[in-house]
Amino acid sequence: MTDAFLERCRQLIGASHVLTSHADMASYLTDWRGRFTGRARAVLRPASAAEVAQLVQACGEYRVPLVPQGGKTGLVLGSVPDDSGLEVVLSLTRLNRIVHIDTANRTMLVQAGCILQQIQDAAEEAGLLFPLSLAAEGSCTIGGNLSTNAGGTAVLRYGNTRELCLGLEVVTAQGEVWDGLRGLRKDNTGYDLRDLFIGAEGTLGVITAAVLKLYPQPKATITALVATGSPRRALELLSLAQDYCGASLTAYELMSDVCLRLVGRHFPHLPRPFAQEHAQYALLEVSSNESEEHAIGLLEGAIGDALEQGIIDDAVVATSLAQSRALWNIREHIPLAQAADGKNLKHDVSLPISRIADFIDQTAAQLQQAFPGCQLVCFGHLGDGNLHYNVAPAEGQSHDEFLANQAAVSRIVHDSVHVFGGSISAEHGIGALKRSDLTRYKSAVELNMMRAIKTALDPLGIMNPGKIL
Amino acid sequence: MTDAFLERCRQLIGASHVLTSHADMASYLTDWRGRFTGRARAVLRPASAAEVAQLVQACGEYRVPLVPQGGKTGLVLGSVPDDSGLEVVLSLTRLNRIVHIDTANRTMLVQAGCILQQIQDAAEEAGLLFPLSLAAEGSCTIGGNLSTNAGGTAVLRYGNTRELCLGLEVVTAQGEVWDGLRGLRKDNTGYDLRDLFIGAEGTLGVITAAVLKLYPQPKATITALVATGSPRRALELLSLAQDYCGASLTAYELMSDVCLRLVGRHFPHLPRPFAQEHAQYALLEVSSNESEEHAIGLLEGAIGDALEQGIIDDAVVATSLAQSRALWNIREHIPLAQAADGKNLKHDVSLPISRIADFIDQTAAQLQQAFPGCQLVCFGHLGDGNLHYNVAPAEGQSHDEFLANQAAVSRIVHDSVHVFGGSISAEHGIGALKRSDLTRYKSAVELNMMRAIKTALDPLGIMNPGKIL
Repeated sequence: MTDAFLERCRQLIGASHVLTSHADMASYLTDWRGRFTGRARAVLRPASAAEVAQLVQACGEYRVPLVPQGGKTGLVLGSVPDDSGLEVVLSLTRLNRIVHIDTANRTMLVQAGCILQQIQDAAEEAGLLFPLSLAAEGSCTIGGNLSTNAGGTAVLRYGNTRELCLGLEVVTAQGEVWDGLRGLRKDNTGYDLRDLFIGAEGTLGVITAAVLKLYPQPKATITALVATGSPRRALELLSLAQDYCGASLTAYELMSDVCLRLVGRHFPHLPRPFAQEHAQYALLEVSSNESEEHAIGLLEGAIGDALEQGIIDDAVVATSLAQSRALWNIREHIPLAQAADGKNLKHDVSLPISRIADFIDQTAAQLQQAFPGCQLVCFGHLGDGNLHYNVAPAEGQSHDEFLANQAAVSRIVHDSVHVFGGSISAEHGIGALKRSDLTRYKSAVELNMMRAIKTALDPLGIMNPGKIL
Repeated sequence: MTDAFLERCRQLIGASHVLTSHADMASYLTDWRGRFTGRARAVLRPASAAEVAQLVQACGEYRVPLVPQGGKTGLVLGSVPDDSGLEVVLSLTRLNRIVHIDTANRTMLVQAGCILQQIQDAAEEAGLLFPLSLAAEGSCTIGGNLSTNAGGTAVLRYGNTRELCLGLEVVTAQGEVWDGLRGLRKDNTGYDLRDLFIGAEGTLGVITAAVLKLYPQPKATITALVATGSPRRALELLSLAQDYCGASLTAYELMSDVCLRLVGRHFPHLPRPFAQEHAQYALLEVSSNESEEHAIGLLEGAIGDALEQGIIDDAVVATSLAQSRALWNIREHIPLAQAADGKNLKHDVSLPISRIADFIDQTAAQLQQAFPGCQLVCFGHLGDGNLHYNVAPAEGQSHDEFLANQAAVSRIVHDSVHVFGGSISAEHGIGALKRSDLTRYKSAVELNMMRAIKTALDPLGIMNPGKIL
């Protein structure tokens, strides 16, 4: 029996771009962390927005649900199909062209399948900066960054992906192409559809291209690692550094003693900046449009004030690019050290900055009561109120045994986040993984509005079903 | 005959807050520029979100359309009722409380009816900055600023109102209160309802409160006025100044020779910074978190480079707050000078910055061909690509005679904006005034999505009907 739907797809984009064999499809079906493998009717690989539109029309006609997919580096099962075998994967990776850089407007027009690093490099070649930066930048695509409103390490100064995008091209659930590729800083002509598609994880339409904002390249970037006694002290330093450095403070990362000990144990070749152990560490990055001296002056000034006021205990300022890289390396090795140490329970939460210290104290107490000795691997983008609040077993406890407590641990963490006015997904999104949490923590009023919008824009329910809602 | 709907309103919020007499209602019915006076069944003045919700429920039950209103300073007839006499005005001005300032989180929780200046002052008292700044700041309310996504003079550095808001409280068209009052820098838990209500001009729901972002106060702000030969040169200076000053460049305003001549004629007491006339002028503002010397150094450095490269012809740097005020005064007197000169035809447009010079040249040529001798009063927020592109009659021509050409003039300007990839409403919104333009310049795909969202969230069509769509 021939499959009329797949036949149509082959006519539209060529048989070689309609993958159906298990071998061809395998790499599209398993999630980034290897926790889940779905099934698919086919993997479709269009090469243009027009082809995406035609495929979506076919999906509508044959009622075939589709899962848009970019670099597949998401962490919440948002870009892999379910296990029904009824869904098709719509891979955007062939839409990988940087179409145009407008240096005077400081914008770049890119297709959705461009790799983030490719975009960063193209901006740099044009003498400009595309500031979005995150661990997966060598593999993730800008379409995925937009669909999940990705965060990363430069949010403090430049905002989330949403703030870095001026316009979109989207294929709607009806298979029409919406050309919203505006390169405007101000535009008040109706509803903000751009920001609705950004962060919608492909459930309302398929992002096929975007106009991105570019910035002047800083002349110098200087990093420091400081040691302090508590998260509260780290927050005092954040406030001091923001007042002192203004927009020049481009990153502010927190790491607990547990994190540094983990890195030290699994990566003993990495430098140990301090002779003594401290309770908390903060990584500060200052960028200057003026000069290296200016950046150093700002950073040393802020640190000097903080030492004098007793907010911090010790500090190391990198005086070369290599030293800066070494300090960032410590931060970036935390997830790798965790992986080497065995699995743990991960949470990507955000809080009002004023409540983070109390959140950390109270949540730790609740977890210790329920799971005595459990270790908190708490680090993240403190300047954005975003913590990667991960929970590992007690020393000597089996990882598998501890992982069985996933639901109970996450319940404690997320309930606490909710009490403190925070978010259970700061930068990873909801996907299929956190869908049930959403109904626990969102009000009925908000969920109903989201459902009404979903139904209005995707009445057939073919766009990435089972994700978010 | 008693009016059951109004009776219900009186029960809900008290008879003294249900205005029905012509005298009581008059000030709520005429638009800011005095061009249009509508009629209303009543003016309702609730004091809380709960009262707003109850009134919206009553409106739904009795199918009474409502027009949310704040400071009524909008320029596109978005906050006044039509002339049917069937609509009620929902005035938010009694919701005027600054609820809470969280200095550690750098946020402020305000009710929608707070006057912008009241918010600026409260931030300043807390040692922080709320950067939104615009001409109507002494009268406009933050609810209106949010509903129109207001722009102003600080967008270059801090963004539009949308970028200054972290969370909202909204009364939905069903009369439910949505508590989205989050104070989070990162939150990826579903559709971006916040940005959908921002800029929706009250057509999807009524904004009743907001969490606003605050910033460190700069230690010094320095202003300069420069003279140059063309818009193209002014754009070269913008690019140079952005590279040189980075985020310290907090405003960049353009004014044509016609603007300065108008100001000189109607306000002869204002200083004339240059002995000679020049074709274009730009106002630059640089802010520093460090010191006045630092700000002056940046500004003088950028100007020095520009003079050396022949980009600009002359410059005046203000060396005191009084001198800074005097330079801004020239800019701020342009609209007043226009008003004193007689009515003209106003346009609030934005363009990709790279295309502004060509837009100005080509549009001027088209207008001169159609209306020989007409004068272009072109000024605005060049750093945001936003021009107030106003057209006045030729010397000696009667203003009334020229105003009769409104439709033809606006058609030329807006068609040209469209060709250059711009927006016909940069910061004022659509309201009732530009509604028909929207159908000319927006694609059917986009309009259909907007209509689908409107119907999904406001199925009875009671929220500010006839505005935007």
